[in-house]
Amino acid sequence: MIDRRNHHLFQPLLYQVATAGLNPSNIARPIRGILAKQSNARVLLAEVVKVDPDARQVSLDDGAELPYDYLVLATGASHAYFGHDEWEAHAPGLKTIEDALEVRRRVLLAFERAERAADPDDSAGDLTFVVVGGGPTGVETAGAIAEIAFKTFTRQFRAIDPNQAKVILLEGADRILGTYPESLSLKAARQLRDLGVDLRLGVTVTNVDADGVETSTGAIRAGTVIWAAGNRASPLAAMTGGQTDRAGRVIVAADLSVSGHPDVFAIGDVAHATVDGHDVPGVAQGAIQGGAHVAKAIRADLAGAPRPTFRYRNKGELATIGRSSAVGTIGPFRLSGWIAWMAWWSIHIVFLIDFRSKLSVLLNWAWNYLTFQRSARLITGPWRPRS
Amino acid sequence: MIDRRNHHLFQPLLYQVATAGLNPSNIARPIRGILAKQSNARVLLAEVVKVDPDARQVSLDDGAELPYDYLVLATGASHAYFGHDEWEAHAPGLKTIEDALEVRRRVLLAFERAERAADPDDSAGDLTFVVVGGGPTGVETAGAIAEIAFKTFTRQFRAIDPNQAKVILLEGADRILGTYPESLSLKAARQLRDLGVDLRLGVTVTNVDADGVETSTGAIRAGTVIWAAGNRASPLAAMTGGQTDRAGRVIVAADLSVSGHPDVFAIGDVAHATVDGHDVPGVAQGAIQGGAHVAKAIRADLAGAPRPTFRYRNKGELATIGRSSAVGTIGPFRLSGWIAWMAWWSIHIVFLIDFRSKLSVLLNWAWNYLTFQRSARLITGPWRPRS
Repeated sequence: MIDRRNHHLFQPLLYQVATAGLNPSNIARPIRGILAKQSNARVLLAEVVKVDPDARQVSLDDGAELPYDYLVLATGASHAYFGHDEWEAHAPGLKTIEDALEVRRRVLLAFERAERAADPDDSAGDLTFVVVGGGPTGVETAGAIAEIAFKTFTRQFRAIDPNQAKVILLEGADRILGTYPESLSLKAARQLRDLGVDLRLGVTVTNVDADGVETSTGAIRAGTVIWAAGNRASPLAAMTGGQTDRAGRVIVAADLSVSGHPDVFAIGDVAHATVDGHDVPGVAQGAIQGGAHVAKAIRADLAGAPRPTFRYRNKGELATIGRSSAVGTIGPFRLSGWIAWMAWWSIHIVFLIDFRSKLSVLLNWAWNYLTFQRSARLITGPWRPRS
Repeated sequence: MIDRRNHHLFQPLLYQVATAGLNPSNIARPIRGILAKQSNARVLLAEVVKVDPDARQVSLDDGAELPYDYLVLATGASHAYFGHDEWEAHAPGLKTIEDALEVRRRVLLAFERAERAADPDDSAGDLTFVVVGGGPTGVETAGAIAEIAFKTFTRQFRAIDPNQAKVILLEGADRILGTYPESLSLKAARQLRDLGVDLRLGVTVTNVDADGVETSTGAIRAGTVIWAAGNRASPLAAMTGGQTDRAGRVIVAADLSVSGHPDVFAIGDVAHATVDGHDVPGVAQGAIQGGAHVAKAIRADLAGAPRPTFRYRNKGELATIGRSSAVGTIGPFRLSGWIAWMAWWSIHIVFLIDFRSKLSVLLNWAWNYLTFQRSARLITGPWRPRS
């Protein structure tokens, strides 16, 4: 197991680290600890910089080469800016713990800057938060920022009124949560608006800079911009010898192997898999099911049996909007409101990797829910309050 | 309340963040939240860069000037390198959350580097940890690193044996914990050595660089060096108009005010106070008692009454060495071993600032104690495994 991080990260809850609700260690566990009891597994903290499917080896950042019998590529995706990498400095995305801490820092600092500003007019932009992209991450992040501004921060400032904050969610399509049934998109939009989020549909971003964003319907002055709009697969996908799609993902066969290289598998965000004419979505359950399938395929090889075909079973999808508020599907059922929210947190707890994570996340949530506060409201990092 | 951090930090437990036992948010709470209900208190996130005791105002980093009727300076100290600031890059100290995360990163990365090294001889230095300074922070840090190496990491590596790690604690004097009774210093030394720490007394450091440390008794090749040896008071101490001592602390009168400026008080690490011929130590209880005294002095002024004289009551001191192991005094009693360890954690829990911190620290400790694991074993920060 080679990873350039020492920890497994439960990405579905990363937005909660970014919005001060959870600690990094609640949703990230050391890989070495997870695999400690599996004595035939070795864990290496290293970055793979090259895959050579013909020589059947990978190269590490320090030049070392590791041969393999089978390669399972699960290197995921990072956020992408449609060719405008210069936007990243002004609009961080949410893929790593460091990303989340930077977003947390910016969101919390914005209120502190506004409280400090001598002239309230100077702080108008500080209290405007723009989230770009109306998928689950964008919806959940916008909802959480609205809760911080309108609930957590009540009575905590003297010069500003946090209720004056503007939380704007921009989505290019005509509805949010595009992969969900349309009725749920409408319900989610209403729940977001009830929470105070200014949801703008059919709006595309044309520029991002230090002053805010420019969009197809005008400029928005904003102190904080968060990017939840595009993904690009890990560059290793292109080195597997397989074809890649527009998002840089390698196209895999029915057994999740790369065309021409049956000893190379790709799963999760880095792969483009198609089952019964439907694309497997780049979400956790696709990766989890993919991992289990690859193990079966390798065992079949070793037993001399034919490999099974990957079957993706969509168990449903859920996105939370805020306190007691969520939408989603579970099997044939469409849920919204309180019942969806109960399902959302129960399912996320179940999929956290160990008992300790489950317990600590539950306790943090209970605390946040009961007190309206946030567990991890720390601004850390270099001292630069004006940036 | 002006602070360049948004959080109050419970410094006595910072070494536990550095050694992966606690999360930053367990021991750091937002100042704004702590003072939310005190409606006559305003919290500003800002750095004070100048104190002008004659004009009775302070200047902030952005040039703003704030006038005051009373100034209470409690800006603490940072680590100092005896005039060798260039050592800091190779031997971080432990004063802020960022310091602690950097130390955690270095300690955990050292084992990962050793596991990766192709040639075991290359990794000899990686698994050597040097802690400079045998005060409470140095003792507690060395003990915690020994526990990680010799207990937490059992069975988690394949190429290296974490039991081969060397944890070396250097102290220039002839005993550790110099402010404690000598019998307790001896007991602490024995407990540290039982834990596997290589304690070297009477050894001074003459140089620190990327290869390790040079000392009065020879060079030590070490991948990780941690500095717990010297403090220097905040530079604001020198701007109060009072005299400063060798550590840069401002010398205060019997009422904790600065000579010639009865409207300027200094408390905690930034002040040098003397009570009945004894210096008030730069520990938490000195700062806490100082703060309460200053409040009384200001109330006395407002009532037209004479200010009380500061009385420091030393309630005792405790340092933990490891699992079920500590030394210290409480009033007239000298404690060591299990009973001191029980007292140590109970007292630290009592002084944590709110119920949430108390609960989360207790739960983390219980978990770590029962499983021999560490709650927050994350390597975060920029990707640079070879540094």
